[in-house]
Amino acid sequence: MSSTSMRTHQCGELRSDDIGQTVSLTGWVGRRREHGEHLAFVDLRDHTGITQCVINDDVDVRSEYVVRITGVVRARPEGTVNDSLPTGDIEVGDCEVEVLRKATPPPFPVDARADGVDENIRLQYRYLDLRRERMQRNLRIRSSVNAAVRKAMERQEFVEVETPMLVPSTPEGAREFLVPSRKEHGAFYALPQSPQLFKQLLMVGGVDRYYQIARCLRDEDLRADRQYEFMQLDMEMSFVGQDDVLDAVSEAVLDAAEAVTGERPGPIERMTWREAMERFGIDKPDLRFGMELTELTDVFSATEFKAFAGAEAIKGLKVDGAADDYGRNQLDKLTDKAKSAGAKGLVWLKCTDEGFDSPVAKFLSDDEVAAVKAAMEAQTGDLILIVADDWMTTCEVLGTLRNDLGRPPVHQGPYRYVWIVEFPLFVGVDKESGRPKPGHHPFTMPHPDDIDKFETDPMAVRSIAYDLVLNGWELGSGSIRIHEPELQKKVFTALGITDEEAARKFGFFLNPFEYGAPPHGGFAFGLDRLVAILAGEENIREVIAFPKTQNGTDPMTNAPVEVDPKQLADLNLKVLPKID
Amino acid sequence: MSSTSMRTHQCGELRSDDIGQTVSLTGWVGRRREHGEHLAFVDLRDHTGITQCVINDDVDVRSEYVVRITGVVRARPEGTVNDSLPTGDIEVGDCEVEVLRKATPPPFPVDARADGVDENIRLQYRYLDLRRERMQRNLRIRSSVNAAVRKAMERQEFVEVETPMLVPSTPEGAREFLVPSRKEHGAFYALPQSPQLFKQLLMVGGVDRYYQIARCLRDEDLRADRQYEFMQLDMEMSFVGQDDVLDAVSEAVLDAAEAVTGERPGPIERMTWREAMERFGIDKPDLRFGMELTELTDVFSATEFKAFAGAEAIKGLKVDGAADDYGRNQLDKLTDKAKSAGAKGLVWLKCTDEGFDSPVAKFLSDDEVAAVKAAMEAQTGDLILIVADDWMTTCEVLGTLRNDLGRPPVHQGPYRYVWIVEFPLFVGVDKESGRPKPGHHPFTMPHPDDIDKFETDPMAVRSIAYDLVLNGWELGSGSIRIHEPELQKKVFTALGITDEEAARKFGFFLNPFEYGAPPHGGFAFGLDRLVAILAGEENIREVIAFPKTQNGTDPMTNAPVEVDPKQLADLNLKVLPKID
Repeated sequence: MSSTSMRTHQCGELRSDDIGQTVSLTGWVGRRREHGEHLAFVDLRDHTGITQCVINDDVDVRSEYVVRITGVVRARPEGTVNDSLPTGDIEVGDCEVEVLRKATPPPFPVDARADGVDENIRLQYRYLDLRRERMQRNLRIRSSVNAAVRKAMERQEFVEVETPMLVPSTPEGAREFLVPSRKEHGAFYALPQSPQLFKQLLMVGGVDRYYQIARCLRDEDLRADRQYEFMQLDMEMSFVGQDDVLDAVSEAVLDAAEAVTGERPGPIERMTWREAMERFGIDKPDLRFGMELTELTDVFSATEFKAFAGAEAIKGLKVDGAADDYGRNQLDKLTDKAKSAGAKGLVWLKCTDEGFDSPVAKFLSDDEVAAVKAAMEAQTGDLILIVADDWMTTCEVLGTLRNDLGRPPVHQGPYRYVWIVEFPLFVGVDKESGRPKPGHHPFTMPHPDDIDKFETDPMAVRSIAYDLVLNGWELGSGSIRIHEPELQKKVFTALGITDEEAARKFGFFLNPFEYGAPPHGGFAFGLDRLVAILAGEENIREVIAFPKTQNGTDPMTNAPVEVDPKQLADLNLKVLPKID
Repeated sequence: MSSTSMRTHQCGELRSDDIGQTVSLTGWVGRRREHGEHLAFVDLRDHTGITQCVINDDVDVRSEYVVRITGVVRARPEGTVNDSLPTGDIEVGDCEVEVLRKATPPPFPVDARADGVDENIRLQYRYLDLRRERMQRNLRIRSSVNAAVRKAMERQEFVEVETPMLVPSTPEGAREFLVPSRKEHGAFYALPQSPQLFKQLLMVGGVDRYYQIARCLRDEDLRADRQYEFMQLDMEMSFVGQDDVLDAVSEAVLDAAEAVTGERPGPIERMTWREAMERFGIDKPDLRFGMELTELTDVFSATEFKAFAGAEAIKGLKVDGAADDYGRNQLDKLTDKAKSAGAKGLVWLKCTDEGFDSPVAKFLSDDEVAAVKAAMEAQTGDLILIVADDWMTTCEVLGTLRNDLGRPPVHQGPYRYVWIVEFPLFVGVDKESGRPKPGHHPFTMPHPDDIDKFETDPMAVRSIAYDLVLNGWELGSGSIRIHEPELQKKVFTALGITDEEAARKFGFFLNPFEYGAPPHGGFAFGLDRLVAILAGEENIREVIAFPKTQNGTDPMTNAPVEVDPKQLADLNLKVLPKID
């Protein structure tokens, strides 16, 4: 550990082996207990831990005083050894205490008790909150994740390139932060929502393999899982196919996980979007728990039950042994949830020894009852939920219910990573134009096997777009990009984008490609969430040193603030009166 | 090197050992030369180099086409080996060529000839400019410097902490960029000029050792050596003295130098500010060349030459063998330069066999002539320049002349690093108040030996502030900070800052210290300039992927631009009419 000219050791470091040594420790005073014979025990604390020091009781040191203590390491007297503390075998005696800085009593205890303090107070005194073991651990986990990710990228010969923070405004997409220019009257920079444009131009520029832990900013409303500013591992590579990208990113993610947990997860599973929807009803499946959806369409192919007859897809979800837990009231709530997720209705069946206890039981034939029980491996006492609708709705509604009923909090282990591949190129249809809408972005490479479906069955065209999912959370997404103009035009045509519109909206992006764009693809994943999950934290603010509140303010610095009128005059700007 | 699913090798990789192998290469088409027997030579290029490929002359590939070439490595026919090329022993024959993307002819040649192209054109087509060997090399040097710096910091147990980009506005110091808040009417964030506040609060927060390669932004007028955005290694550590900081930073800088040049510079010399001024007349001395200033005050202690009599300091600068090179005209120019640097005048002496050729020779005694020649080790033909003034002016004027007459361009080797320490705590006096002004910032620790000079001789108080200088360029600066209130108050008092003013201006910074600030100090150095010097580039724009022009614009993206009025309305802002 790090000795300096002021200390020989850190507070979590001393052991029985050090007994007899004269040491100097620095840190903050934690607990102080008076002890007979004019002595006091002081717990001296730094980020590595605490050491018990025995001082004269006439030394005035109090909670959070900053001190330097020099003394001799000795064994604790029998009966006072503290097994729960790494330094619990020893104490430092014969102490000389130098008070480096007195301290005002802190507004909350600088230990685990602060977890219960109002978050705004914690953020207002963030410099005290950060002194706590939990926050120190989180900051250090974050640092080690960054280091592991960078090392993995460098090992794979990626070049770190810093892209600009002052970029052109591109009003498409999320809302961006603007930065007024002082030199160009009435002109603005924007802060980057991502380095997408620049990283693709780096590929045109022959960089071959680019990465950056990039700061991105979006002026969107904040939630527990979102901040104005976020960090992402941003990468792009040339002359590659999907597997090259997935392999490269997997290395970084697995290295990061190993750096934090000490264990390297196995290779990351790959699953098509279609399979994820069929089995889990969602494109970001949480693989930590079962409750997979069961295909029942064939079971009801000749049903006389009107709600099922003719449905494109019928699927079931089984909740083991839950029949008795769900009264009419809870079942109504599940039905409401299914409806608000888009279903026309929800059928529930409680498995009994005889058949099903359900309002719709009377509409089902004995064969259907038996087939459902067999398909779902249902036992007496299980609750079965069935949706019959178009395929997408059936999957999505049951996927929502599955997560509601079974999903543990995202940040609880075990960690289950999965690549979702072959996303549809088009999702849904624009109501006005009747044209399909892009699933990822209009520069995403279509699957080569599906090019002939553009006219005949556009919604069946798969893309080479992929997401990385951890515990049901989308960590990031990417794609192979279209690098040549004929295919790009085909996609624009399918999206109803004319040549003129393409030139106007995307020229700044596509014109450079004319000078020789290589085949390329990339990925970006959010580090805040990954770090939070690996740190076992639900709220990303716990893994950010100085986060904003959900109001976008910083209670410590009071940002944002009104500024000097002269500063605005320099920018040729005027704040308009508030309209209530 | 990096094979992918599209290539087996990169273009700079193949050697005689590979002869007989079937390989696939990808890249851009460089030179094409037609060759007899229906063949053509094509230089295939990527960032690793070029490989000569022999293709059928009916294959339509032209300059900057993106292609994949599969063929067999073979020895070049005798007489056609190219020793200047690492791949010059081989070529790839029997080539199958796949055109991945055609290319429009580039607006300038994608090779060293582009160095002569107008920089605005290069920046407009930066994605082409970056394809060139020089730019690829610069980007990769930058990446390796970042990696080396980070590894050095991590090895020394520094924790990387990301501080916010949206920070409070603090109108002190350089002009800052503002970011309007959408949620808080009339309020603004600022972009950080440095993470100074946050890094010191991290020390209060017990982080112990913080580092970050931080993006900083200043809305200042641009020059060749300055951009709106710049990167700095920012660090801070607790429970340390000056040597701890200097040692830690030196590791990072020496590792970075070694990563680029392959050679580790020796330990970095340390020099007091006073010594630097005495010997080199500047606080950022360039140690690559001699021409040190010679102390002559004692020589003239009893002079009858009025211009020298009673001067606080008299120093000389010798220009070897330059007597004949400087006619009256050039000497007048030197005198003008000395005057514009603050001197009342400049004395020049040309050394002859007899004595001095100079308008003032007649005022000097024989003893003085002999003593000057001895002190300056002057030879016939040397030119001697002498300034007699107050000590600071004498040093500074001759330091300016020394640099003008002897200093090589900053980016030319050898690399000479030096730490300048013990800067004065106060520099100059505020004309209005008559109070001293802070040399670094008002939170800089005074030298403990000088505390008793605060009242008696404030200008003699040294500080624990230090700069790192490379080839006469200030790479960065730092200090040990004041962590306790009595000393802080003493400094404020000397600066004429009242308690009330201190609380109002610096409360946000000093109030947290009340809760227990540890002794701490830190440093920050600019990476753009360090990378430029190590890359042998004079202009930092050459080591930035997407720099702004000196007008603050980006000719590639056209940023900054006017934005949609709706965006401004969302921010309650109005652009005022332009006033000519």
